Amino acid sequence: MSNPESALKFAHDQKERFLDELSSFLRIESISTDPERMDDMTNAAEWVAGQLEQFGFSDVQVMPTDRHPVVYGKHDKAGPDAPTILIYGHYDVQPVDPVDEWDSDPFEPTIRDDYIFARGASDMKGQIVAQLKAVESIISTSELPINLKYLVEGEEEIGSPSLEAFVRKNQTLLDCDFCLNADGGILGANTPSMTYALRGLAYFEINLQGPSSDLHSGTFGGAVENPANVLCNLIAGMQDENGRVTLPGFYDDVIALSDEERAEMAKLPQTKQWWLDQSGAKELRGESGFSAVERASGRPTLDVNGLYSGFIGEGSKTVLPSRAMAKVSMRLVPNQRPEAVEKSLISYLESNMPPTMTWEIEQHAGCTPGIIDLESNAARAAMAALESVWGKKPLSKREGGSVPIVSLLKEALNIDSLMLGFGLPDDNLHAPNEKFYLPNFYRGIETYIHFIHNIG
Amino acid sequence: MSNPESALKFAHDQKERFLDELSSFLRIESISTDPERMDDMTNAAEWVAGQLEQFGFSDVQVMPTDRHPVVYGKHDKAGPDAPTILIYGHYDVQPVDPVDEWDSDPFEPTIRDDYIFARGASDMKGQIVAQLKAVESIISTSELPINLKYLVEGEEEIGSPSLEAFVRKNQTLLDCDFCLNADGGILGANTPSMTYALRGLAYFEINLQGPSSDLHSGTFGGAVENPANVLCNLIAGMQDENGRVTLPGFYDDVIALSDEERAEMAKLPQTKQWWLDQSGAKELRGESGFSAVERASGRPTLDVNGLYSGFIGEGSKTVLPSRAMAKVSMRLVPNQRPEAVEKSLISYLESNMPPTMTWEIEQHAGCTPGIIDLESNAARAAMAALESVWGKKPLSKREGGSVPIVSLLKEALNIDSLMLGFGLPDDNLHAPNEKFYLPNFYRGIETYIHFIHNIG
Repeated sequence: MSNPESALKFAHDQKERFLDELSSFLRIESISTDPERMDDMTNAAEWVAGQLEQFGFSDVQVMPTDRHPVVYGKHDKAGPDAPTILIYGHYDVQPVDPVDEWDSDPFEPTIRDDYIFARGASDMKGQIVAQLKAVESIISTSELPINLKYLVEGEEEIGSPSLEAFVRKNQTLLDCDFCLNADGGILGANTPSMTYALRGLAYFEINLQGPSSDLHSGTFGGAVENPANVLCNLIAGMQDENGRVTLPGFYDDVIALSDEERAEMAKLPQTKQWWLDQSGAKELRGESGFSAVERASGRPTLDVNGLYSGFIGEGSKTVLPSRAMAKVSMRLVPNQRPEAVEKSLISYLESNMPPTMTWEIEQHAGCTPGIIDLESNAARAAMAALESVWGKKPLSKREGGSVPIVSLLKEALNIDSLMLGFGLPDDNLHAPNEKFYLPNFYRGIETYIHFIHNIG
Repeated sequence: MSNPESALKFAHDQKERFLDELSSFLRIESISTDPERMDDMTNAAEWVAGQLEQFGFSDVQVMPTDRHPVVYGKHDKAGPDAPTILIYGHYDVQPVDPVDEWDSDPFEPTIRDDYIFARGASDMKGQIVAQLKAVESIISTSELPINLKYLVEGEEEIGSPSLEAFVRKNQTLLDCDFCLNADGGILGANTPSMTYALRGLAYFEINLQGPSSDLHSGTFGGAVENPANVLCNLIAGMQDENGRVTLPGFYDDVIALSDEERAEMAKLPQTKQWWLDQSGAKELRGESGFSAVERASGRPTLDVNGLYSGFIGEGSKTVLPSRAMAKVSMRLVPNQRPEAVEKSLISYLESNMPPTMTWEIEQHAGCTPGIIDLESNAARAAMAALESVWGKKPLSKREGGSVPIVSLLKEALNIDSLMLGFGLPDDNLHAPNEKFYLPNFYRGIETYIHFIHNIG
């Protein structure tokens, strides 16, 4: 392991300039959903490309897609035996509405109380600049002990419509050992943490039809089966009384939580009271035998996201509905796969659908879960880096949500992603007064310096 | 039993005039929902009152209510030992939209192919006039062997908002042995039938709330219980695998169908194929052990009428909904009562609601089922009258729907209702080109003459 001290000193000495550069990047109004901001989008992409060129990256390109370009660059001077890390990021930001709720101009970065306020400060220009400045600090003082590739897109805030085609088309360009994704955060300013797993998603819409049109429930009720009742039966049957999903083979590919993981999860600040406060629920309940934090991040779930049938206006209408619809989704954990879950759901429906119903099912979204082995070099390097900077043992955690890019890289390139970012839970992402905690900006730079040295 | 021959002859001789009088009544545009038709409403009420006065009824009144008046009159010359029948009817009609779909003016009665076309011809001015002309025929040729009271309202097509208060306020005025309600029909022009039972209704809206606002299903799914899943479980649990309702005590007050009734029901033209054709369902299913016609009229049911939760637009939204709503109603059979069903449902919900949910239930509608004993004088008199006129044994049937006035009279005055009307299933009630089959108008007059003589 090489010595990071000179890079850390460089970073310390250049704090003011690094902050100025972050501010320049934040001034670019790169709102990806706004067709009036096309020039800003190009400027933001070129700002990132300019940094890479400055640090001696090769093959730096601003590569067009159907909408906003992808910035690519590589630094492979560490040679073919050294690990190659793909750094993922996005240079686009959310819109700023409602703009009157901002206390300062969203595109004129303003510092108050150790925070820098600007659209994109935390999500995720601050994280990108922290990474770039770590790379600059190393390159300016010694040599990169690893190879780096950059993939910085401009469509994350609009659902990355061009990214899948881009990744599948540029597999060789993106070839690497793992991905470092900084689009995230830590648990608290003094609670360093690393996300080592994400849940996947399988989202379906189920439509049932019984009678060919709505009927009078007096004349037909009892004779003709009601699709809304049938739908409720089907959904109820998808889980047992212990909150376990009953779809055939649903748990076959689930990697059980280890005792060590459960012990780590018990240390997280998400206590039962935290979940009650955050959700406003009066009591918690879910799969038996697991804590709320385990259920919400380390266990698969089945949730109804939408339900519709018949008459839903004020008062009463005595209708026996013709149709009933449910949107049902499962959050998946490693190594479940959306395709397997779809087969399992279809098989369940085929076995349990009464002969009175015509039905169809559509998969609206699918996302593979992600995990990086806590014993891998990447994970150990990240945990050690966090401990070096914060001076305390970091927490490791799983996230309950899904990150499509992590899923895409796993699906298309079989690459795992390490989530290591420095946002805080109250950074006002996607909201007015987005901010980034400046001590985390500097600690982020230091952490990435340590991380690159640890892995090298 | 007195001899109806002279009354029948009178009716036969006066056919033309009776038809003219029906046409005069049909020309009055008594659309109860239309504020521009207030004068027509008064004219229609007075037309009925005028008939009663002409036949020597006493205490004839056009009694005001909050909206449209009720016509009342009585004929009690048969004395206190003779039975008293309350004849219920309504002089209001449905709107005529879409008026371009009528082949002739809805308020200019037109005869084509043995049908008289006009708004209200079948529902129910034709039935009212048939009854009045039967009474006139008897009174003009002999004496009424029974006492009659008339209650003809003007708000049936708008839900009878004033009737409950009217009935409860005028209990003595309406005191009688049973009610004759002609607001119905027979199975076919050559298939005479009598309805001896109606189902009741208990209609509820159930609202569940879990978290205080919609949550992200990735972050919270698994930790926090989902009200839509809970609602599906609760609804699914309301029926067992044999299609029987599981609410505690639900069947306690149900009068079982007798073997005789089931044998009669098997003769009805509603075969399995009829139900398939009428509903467009590809297969039928319901409570085990009963035929479709039994299930739809002689057995209680539980139907979801409406279901709503979360996101029901196009595509996907990964929401864990805060709320879920169902409208659920039960059709009731004698002697079930809506109040008892409400208690039973609340008890079921209290026992099965998880501690994660805040919930409320509201009863939107309640209607007591009705039945008239097939062995009673009234039912036997009606069946014999139908047989005399049609020359064949009539069918007896139960209706699956509910008739609020029948429920109201049972609740408020403990009066059973005999349903005896002569509409046909394809009379286009509430639709363009409403019609009444003229042979049924005349047979109706004859049937009422026989009925009154039979009961007297």
